[in-house]
Amino acid sequence: MNIRFIINIFGRVLILLGLFMLTPIIWAFVYGEDTVGGILASSLITLAAGTFMYFGSLINLRKELGLRDSYFTVTFTWVVISLFGMLPYIFTGSIEGLPNVYFETVSGFTTTGSTILTDIESLPKSILFWRSLSQWIGGMGIIVLVVAILPLLRIGGYNLFKSEASGISYEKLTPKTASTAKRLWGIYVALTIILIPLLLIGGMSFFDSLNHAFTVMAAGGFSTKDASIGAFSPFVQYVVILFMLLAGMNFYLHYHFIKGRFKRVFSNIELKTYLSIVGIVTIAITIAVYLEGTYNLEYVIRKSFFQVTSILTTSGFATYDYLLWPTPAWTLLFLLMFVGACVGSTGGGIKVIRHVVSFRSVVLHFKRMLHPNSVSLLKINGEVIDDEKVSSLITFLVLYLFTFISGSIIMVFLGLDTFTAVGAVAANLGGVGPGIGTVGPAANYHHIHDAGKIVLSFLMIIGRLELTTVIILFTSMFWDKYR
Amino acid sequence: MNIRFIINIFGRVLILLGLFMLTPIIWAFVYGEDTVGGILASSLITLAAGTFMYFGSLINLRKELGLRDSYFTVTFTWVVISLFGMLPYIFTGSIEGLPNVYFETVSGFTTTGSTILTDIESLPKSILFWRSLSQWIGGMGIIVLVVAILPLLRIGGYNLFKSEASGISYEKLTPKTASTAKRLWGIYVALTIILIPLLLIGGMSFFDSLNHAFTVMAAGGFSTKDASIGAFSPFVQYVVILFMLLAGMNFYLHYHFIKGRFKRVFSNIELKTYLSIVGIVTIAITIAVYLEGTYNLEYVIRKSFFQVTSILTTSGFATYDYLLWPTPAWTLLFLLMFVGACVGSTGGGIKVIRHVVSFRSVVLHFKRMLHPNSVSLLKINGEVIDDEKVSSLITFLVLYLFTFISGSIIMVFLGLDTFTAVGAVAANLGGVGPGIGTVGPAANYHHIHDAGKIVLSFLMIIGRLELTTVIILFTSMFWDKYR
Ligand SMILES: [K+]
Ligand SMILES: [K+]
Repeated sequence: MNIRFIINIFGRVLILLGLFMLTPIIWAFVYGEDTVGGILASSLITLAAGTFMYFGSLINLRKELGLRDSYFTVTFTWVVISLFGMLPYIFTGSIEGLPNVYFETVSGFTTTGSTILTDIESLPKSILFWRSLSQWIGGMGIIVLVVAILPLLRIGGYNLFKSEASGISYEKLTPKTASTAKRLWGIYVALTIILIPLLLIGGMSFFDSLNHAFTVMAAGGFSTKDASIGAFSPFVQYVVILFMLLAGMNFYLHYHFIKGRFKRVFSNIELKTYLSIVGIVTIAITIAVYLEGTYNLEYVIRKSFFQVTSILTTSGFATYDYLLWPTPAWTLLFLLMFVGACVGSTGGGIKVIRHVVSFRSVVLHFKRMLHPNSVSLLKINGEVIDDEKVSSLITFLVLYLFTFISGSIIMVFLGLDTFTAVGAVAANLGGVGPGIGTVGPAANYHHIHDAGKIVLSFLMIIGRLELTTVIILFTSMFWDKYR
Repeated sequence: MNIRFIINIFGRVLILLGLFMLTPIIWAFVYGEDTVGGILASSLITLAAGTFMYFGSLINLRKELGLRDSYFTVTFTWVVISLFGMLPYIFTGSIEGLPNVYFETVSGFTTTGSTILTDIESLPKSILFWRSLSQWIGGMGIIVLVVAILPLLRIGGYNLFKSEASGISYEKLTPKTASTAKRLWGIYVALTIILIPLLLIGGMSFFDSLNHAFTVMAAGGFSTKDASIGAFSPFVQYVVILFMLLAGMNFYLHYHFIKGRFKRVFSNIELKTYLSIVGIVTIAITIAVYLEGTYNLEYVIRKSFFQVTSILTTSGFATYDYLLWPTPAWTLLFLLMFVGACVGSTGGGIKVIRHVVSFRSVVLHFKRMLHPNSVSLLKINGEVIDDEKVSSLITFLVLYLFTFISGSIIMVFLGLDTFTAVGAVAANLGGVGPGIGTVGPAANYHHIHDAGKIVLSFLMIIGRLELTTVIILFTSMFWDKYR
């Protein structure tokens, strides 16, 4: 294991994190809060640790990572930033209890958006800003992961979709990869900046606009209000729907769109499926809720369009407590937690493309049943996906399901009722945030057992890093070589 | 489509069914019931229809079935016997309402064991006998399906496990296949006959012994008592546990065992996994229930051993209302509904071997992540399963899950609460019978909406015939050639 280089990477990451950590201080000054000392101390500790790790590992540094080193580094990057990211909450005393702080921080950097806060608005603005910023940083991390690292590591089938298919190329870390990452970061930053004035127009304060721009583009779901986006105007709600949809799309497609390659964008099967799901489920839920006769049509459409988009993109914002809707409506929303956003987006979950492949593999299976002697192939966006790739991709689904079930059993054994256990695990593994049962959109995770909070935090990281990246660290074969 | 030969096959099946239908008349005489006329009429109609179809199709008969014809024939064999199997209930007026009669009959021939009867013991003995017999006939049908037809049709991966792996050979229908089927039928009949005196020793009447011998060996779950096996002595309960376990095993292994090939039996990975699951889950549930402190240890072990075996083998008998147990206990039982019995048994569900393959495909995936340049293979019982086979096998899991979710959504839209919807679909698709919610082991399916009963009956047939056999009939590509 090239521990020297791994420490070096962690050092760089922590220096960046420490610099980001300075920005909430501005808001402490603006709102005259007494959090300056706590945040500054957090930042300095993080910067000091980062600098120490970076320079301490420079001598005889060999800049090479094996496959094993890479899996380890990716997983522990999220662990390390989550540990240092806890400091502002701890030093300002704004969240009580280490499990709570850990849960909230991991929920930030993984862009999950589950919260243990019972009264969000009582927190200092500077700390709320750090909370939102942690999601935006997490989103940046995901983009570099998707562009550069996952395809290289053959994780979760990310190597399957080459440039033509999804824009993701499977090659060594090259200067080209770095420039691609920068381009996608540019799109991420640009969309964030465009969103701010739109939210201002809708009546948000500048502080709220900035925070929500961060958490919308990261498909994060943290809000500065207890009522989430429900606290804002219908205009804001429509704007957030649009930008959640953009955050849940493959960022490569945004890039192609800007370059005028419209055909490539609109012929993309994952995008078409993604938008179709939003449309069909919104209509189904609108009908189910409107038939109750309580609300006018625009209201129902807006609420259901919002919840569908929020859950499919794994954003997790809310404008309504959908658990109050008829059973078929929230059952559909619950199932959306298992669909996920598009590959190459900041959204999490299983991802639409995996469902497309598994659906096509069912069709392929039928074809082979009817024509056992002819060669049948599976194609995605015109590219053949061979059986090894198909099986590796569906295996991801199996592993996801296995993790979901194991997690649910653990939560049930920790004393949760079945609904809450299943809802909490689905929502946190899938990166959505609010679940069903007692952790629904109008509730929070404060009442969960401390052990349960640790388990859910772990599931957030597993889900965010496409499962295998993390789970492989727990296999004996991973450590075989090191023994 | 070779309709002539298909009708000819249905004719033979109906003649056999009509003959079986005569046997309940004996019990009508023994118990002096007024059902003789109704049952005799049913039998004669069935025999007449069968004879007419058989002889009417003999001229110019070409005994060849294409692949499409075979899928069609297998599915409709179950539909046809279910339709004629309804007659005894209808003509004796023992079950009210056609959806109820259809549900009960399909539940019989698919060996599912769900019932709409609210007071089983009030039915005439002769009708209860027909009900039990329908499961035993269903079990015979499954054996011939597994031996001769599924491997040939490449359904659900049955072609994957050749003789060495599970004893199932993938070859054309040969005289050898026919003799294999007869041998396995012999084992089925022999085990049924051995079970009868054991149940008598346990204190059952001869009538009850015969009925339960039929339904235990078919992994069926129909009982002549409202309290199911809970109405009988602990000795009977242990005997039933043992024979449920035998019914849930691959019948080829029984054959190998009789021939003294013990090594082949005990090295079989599916058998080892199957028995391990029974052991581990029994222990877990015993602990969870015993900790409540209400019952003595033997009682708890017996009850939990029984429920675990009953659900894993998809038998569906009950000795206790497990929904009264702590949540972790019945959650585990619910999950067992998705495991299923062994391939080549009379049990249904997903089957243990599919889980073994999917688990190994996850391991294979990790191996390939760590060693991208070396060749990693998946082996089952020493035989290599290539990627095409793995992907076809996991595709079955995806399709199963998809069917389960679609079925649950339909049931929710038909007005069931989520628990009951999910429980009913899992239990009927998986061939278990009793589910959770309001269709638990102490309840029945009487209160379900008529449309819901039809949907569940359909799911029973889909599940029994390994999904693809039936679902392929609903694809456009199936009918392409015929248009
Ligand atoms: K989220
Ligand atoms: K059954």
